[in-house]
Amino acid sequence: MRASVLFSGGKDSSLVAILLEPFFDVELVTCSFSVLPVGEVAKMAANELGFAHRVLKLDSIVLENALTIIINDGYPKNAINYIHQNAVESLASDVGVKIIADGIRRDDRVPVLTDSQVRSIEDRFGIQYICPLRGYGRAAVNMLVQQHLVIEEGQSDDMVKGDYETELREMIRQRFGHEKVSELFPMHIQSRIVKRIM
Amino acid sequence: MRASVLFSGGKDSSLVAILLEPFFDVELVTCSFSVLPVGEVAKMAANELGFAHRVLKLDSIVLENALTIIINDGYPKNAINYIHQNAVESLASDVGVKIIADGIRRDDRVPVLTDSQVRSIEDRFGIQYICPLRGYGRAAVNMLVQQHLVIEEGQSDDMVKGDYETELREMIRQRFGHEKVSELFPMHIQSRIVKRIM
Repeated sequence: MRASVLFSGGKDSSLVAILLEPFFDVELVTCSFSVLPVGEVAKMAANELGFAHRVLKLDSIVLENALTIIINDGYPKNAINYIHQNAVESLASDVGVKIIADGIRRDDRVPVLTDSQVRSIEDRFGIQYICPLRGYGRAAVNMLVQQHLVIEEGQSDDMVKGDYETELREMIRQRFGHEKVSELFPMHIQSRIVKRIM
Repeated sequence: MRASVLFSGGKDSSLVAILLEPFFDVELVTCSFSVLPVGEVAKMAANELGFAHRVLKLDSIVLENALTIIINDGYPKNAINYIHQNAVESLASDVGVKIIADGIRRDDRVPVLTDSQVRSIEDRFGIQYICPLRGYGRAAVNMLVQQHLVIEEGQSDDMVKGDYETELREMIRQRFGHEKVSELFPMHIQSRIVKRIM
């Protein structure tokens, strides 16, 4: 059975792929608006991990709507969740996709689908949405990451990653300047996988 | 790294053991008050699965307290959660236990530890508590079970299993009669593993 893992090139989605590998035929899928080469960056990471990878192009109207949301809100949570829901639905509507796996951890607050969003997507599209790290805390994830991956960590500002935040930040930078990005997004540590420990 | 899986002999805890097997040194642990031979029943299931197994004896005062709770409440939720918390803490205090894995699914409501109970146990005992099925819905679990296990299902009334409910029901039957058991516990389908599909 194939599992399609939402893949950003970060440690959580990489670990999900590794945990599922003994039980599923894993493909990695990176969602992109083609604003930045996040698909290519994620593909390099996928090659390092040794998994099949493809890029799913998202409708640019979704990014425009997310931009409106974040500017109105003044913080990123709802905009990121909005993109995430659209990405999951877009992948779910892909013929042949039956299982979607997401890298959400126990302590993650963003992006997270609500229970009713999950049930609605599973019912409407006839897919299973699984979060293999949902029952793992930060320390347990870090322990597994250390055993299986070499990662590089850095400030979110310096790092092009295969996630929605990277492209949303870039759109804000283009339209409103760099200051606005710093105002809307708190600095936080991002990870990118360098290689897999076999 | 060793993972100690709370094991009832049912499909969820069996599946947890199988999912963790490629990544951890798995041991199965069945908690028992020795009211019924639940340890022995679970050990047979563990042998079928091919995992190391041991029984952890719980303090009978915990069962007495749970009995008081369920009689006062008139429904089992709080009593089962109370036993569960004590079981996890008892296993966590075991020297050498560093990772405790639990078979809770996304849709499970009982037994479930709250986020603050989990954090408190992890901090006090220096362990990691993981729930590998927490991000899996019923259909995804059933699909994996079908691939890896042959199970037998039956009414909760007829089945001796390695879980707290079995012993709590027996205590109520001894003290208050069979009628009281039926009054307090809604009938539901239980599973027991028969063998593993290799």
